[in-house]
Amino acid sequence: MKERPDSIELLTDLYELTMAASYLENHMANSATFSLFIRKYPPNRAYFVAAGLEDFLEYAANFHFSENDLAYLDNTTMFSPDFLHYLKNMRFTGTIRALPEGEIFFKDEPILEVTAPIIEAQILETFAINTINLQSMIATKAARCIHAAAGRRLVDFSLRRTQGIDAGLKVARSSYIAGFVATSNVLAGKRYGIPISGTMAHSYISSFGDEIEAFRAFARLFPEKAVFLIDTYDTIAGARKAAIVGQEMAKKGHKLLGVRLDSGDMAGLSQQVRKILDEAGLNDTEIFASSSFDEYKIARTLKEGAKIDAFGVGTRMGVSADAPYFDIAYKLVQYGERPIMKFSTGKTNLAGKKQIFRRTDGQGRFVEDMIGTADETVEEARPLLEPMMENGKLLKTHPSLEEIRERFAKNFQALHEKYKALDGAPSYPVKLSARLKALQNASSSYSSPR
Amino acid sequence: MKERPDSIELLTDLYELTMAASYLENHMANSATFSLFIRKYPPNRAYFVAAGLEDFLEYAANFHFSENDLAYLDNTTMFSPDFLHYLKNMRFTGTIRALPEGEIFFKDEPILEVTAPIIEAQILETFAINTINLQSMIATKAARCIHAAAGRRLVDFSLRRTQGIDAGLKVARSSYIAGFVATSNVLAGKRYGIPISGTMAHSYISSFGDEIEAFRAFARLFPEKAVFLIDTYDTIAGARKAAIVGQEMAKKGHKLLGVRLDSGDMAGLSQQVRKILDEAGLNDTEIFASSSFDEYKIARTLKEGAKIDAFGVGTRMGVSADAPYFDIAYKLVQYGERPIMKFSTGKTNLAGKKQIFRRTDGQGRFVEDMIGTADETVEEARPLLEPMMENGKLLKTHPSLEEIRERFAKNFQALHEKYKALDGAPSYPVKLSARLKALQNASSSYSSPR
Repeated sequence: MKERPDSIELLTDLYELTMAASYLENHMANSATFSLFIRKYPPNRAYFVAAGLEDFLEYAANFHFSENDLAYLDNTTMFSPDFLHYLKNMRFTGTIRALPEGEIFFKDEPILEVTAPIIEAQILETFAINTINLQSMIATKAARCIHAAAGRRLVDFSLRRTQGIDAGLKVARSSYIAGFVATSNVLAGKRYGIPISGTMAHSYISSFGDEIEAFRAFARLFPEKAVFLIDTYDTIAGARKAAIVGQEMAKKGHKLLGVRLDSGDMAGLSQQVRKILDEAGLNDTEIFASSSFDEYKIARTLKEGAKIDAFGVGTRMGVSADAPYFDIAYKLVQYGERPIMKFSTGKTNLAGKKQIFRRTDGQGRFVEDMIGTADETVEEARPLLEPMMENGKLLKTHPSLEEIRERFAKNFQALHEKYKALDGAPSYPVKLSARLKALQNASSSYSSPR
Repeated sequence: MKERPDSIELLTDLYELTMAASYLENHMANSATFSLFIRKYPPNRAYFVAAGLEDFLEYAANFHFSENDLAYLDNTTMFSPDFLHYLKNMRFTGTIRALPEGEIFFKDEPILEVTAPIIEAQILETFAINTINLQSMIATKAARCIHAAAGRRLVDFSLRRTQGIDAGLKVARSSYIAGFVATSNVLAGKRYGIPISGTMAHSYISSFGDEIEAFRAFARLFPEKAVFLIDTYDTIAGARKAAIVGQEMAKKGHKLLGVRLDSGDMAGLSQQVRKILDEAGLNDTEIFASSSFDEYKIARTLKEGAKIDAFGVGTRMGVSADAPYFDIAYKLVQYGERPIMKFSTGKTNLAGKKQIFRRTDGQGRFVEDMIGTADETVEEARPLLEPMMENGKLLKTHPSLEEIRERFAKNFQALHEKYKALDGAPSYPVKLSARLKALQNASSSYSSPR
């Protein structure tokens, strides 16, 4: 069991509890299945990267209300003693099938299906959406940055502008899954074992006043890990000073790891700085760039001929600035034996327990997906949802973060380049199986209003 | 002292620690002042609402590294035993001056100034930006929604799509400061004492199958607090059923609190539903609407003649979707006796310790602001930054959330309507005092590169 924030079970929408109270009063204890899926592609997205499942499974596996939580609910005077007693003893006893973290998925595909007595399955809704939305959204954004960087290394610099503490941690983890090599976030380094990275701010240079002395002081303490920030006053002058100190370091058998550009015309400046470093014999000293980078600016900067070895990617990745939320939903798709559809304008769902089947070609590249019913098999296609919990128990240990990262890398390679375009990517083909279609037609009459 | 997440001191960018190590090695212990400010207005914003200070002050007041944190840092092999020993004993011993939560502020204005030995003042940077950015951004977005709603009540429905857990809590708190009346987030209700709100989801209706029976079951359990969700199948048919149940409730001496619309044409549907309710004698039953609302959609819907009494405002407010981050910075402005400016392209700052002075007219309405030096007085203007900590100690207890909310309401009334326009608002006048200008001119020569 992992550490959890205080009262995380209360981190839920009130209606999960009012509905639960009514289900209890009406003895509605049938098994319900909920599906989690994304209803549409945000601008410029044509694929999604699954992340956040581990947190959700831990939440479900350890779900219980504390005495303190129950006392608060009692104080609201909304709930009966019977219901509070029920909550006190409630644990999650159901089944969870899900897409493993690091897999790629598409619009409408169910990436999580929870089956349990309706109160238990319903009450996980808010947390399921919250944590899987955030982590999949950031993993997707980070994957786009990785694609744009075409092999250059990326480091997560987003912590200061992520939307809160939890987001700061999850962004570090999700971007690492997508292929980032490190994070500036020290707590994420500690908690997840992600390499940490960072050297100096402008204030460091300013506090010394004398730029070259600031570089020298830093080099004394970090003779193998120094990256000098060179734009505090004038980037080119800064680069010349960095080169002087880099040569001094080389004479002592040390090595200036890099310089960092943080403002101005990145393509032009990086070319000039590369020349200054090379002329000083510092061919191995890398150029690091940070300054409002996202996939679009990385691509543009590289196209302009930038000589940049690694990018610090911050705010715009860390909040998924051009798509700061996904249209993600957790919908009741079966209650007892009855498949459920919803008819609200623009908000339909696929009824029934489902499975994603993926066809690949001889080289393992994705060809097309089919959404089918959970109990069918599709020839020459791999079912993607795996059983994760049964009877409220985890079925296996979580994969390590490195395993998830490798899984994503392998999947990303198997996705055709055209779907990775930063804009104008075509839709990946996702079909419905004949059996699932038949179920939908049957469900329309089942589910219509009476 | 309040509860805090594990190892929150490590929730920092690595460079805060590498710089600190170098400052220690170079015996740089002079007093430094850092200023927090927003460099530019995001699209359609012409004012900001201050929020997040309480969390920052608690962070500073309780700052210390745990043995466990230090063991992790030791393991990185980046830091000397001397430095780790220094960190072990480090507490924040400095001074903090800040704009109270609930105040309104503008671009370039310093809303937080931290003065302490440079290591201590520097190390607070990441958390300061993170928490004040998020909370001020959401309070600002929520204030725009309040303005657009022109007196209708707003409820925070964002938890499922906020960027993580911490954001979910902070959004509830920040939107309450701005004037929201309740949140769906139960933990926020418990932690902050905010009223909680919520009744049922579509899955509730679907699980019953029979819509009117679902309404009746809910009414039995919550005879005074029921809000029926009426769009699961067909909104108008749902409204007629709600009206039937509402009349049944009235006969028993109960009252149907409201109905909720969650899809479709909100203006047209709300007018039809109002008519149905009124014809059933349910004139006091309110119409609640939720469906991708933000300030723009609220304004548009009301302009179209919607009969809506209250809005559930979710995702777009909860992530500040049209401006998901602010260009906020925490910059060194003085080191020892030396004022500091930064020259990087597009990233300058105002040197020196500062104060915001606000002029108001006879009715208390904002006229103009002046940014001056911390030690000057400006006639007929109120200084806004207040001393919050001295020698590492809090100077007063935090205001209650209700006090902060009232403070904001009073301030918002004092801000001229033209600055509240959802787009095209003019710039509020913010000037620099003669003394601050003179300091900037002097600082340019102080701070230039050597």
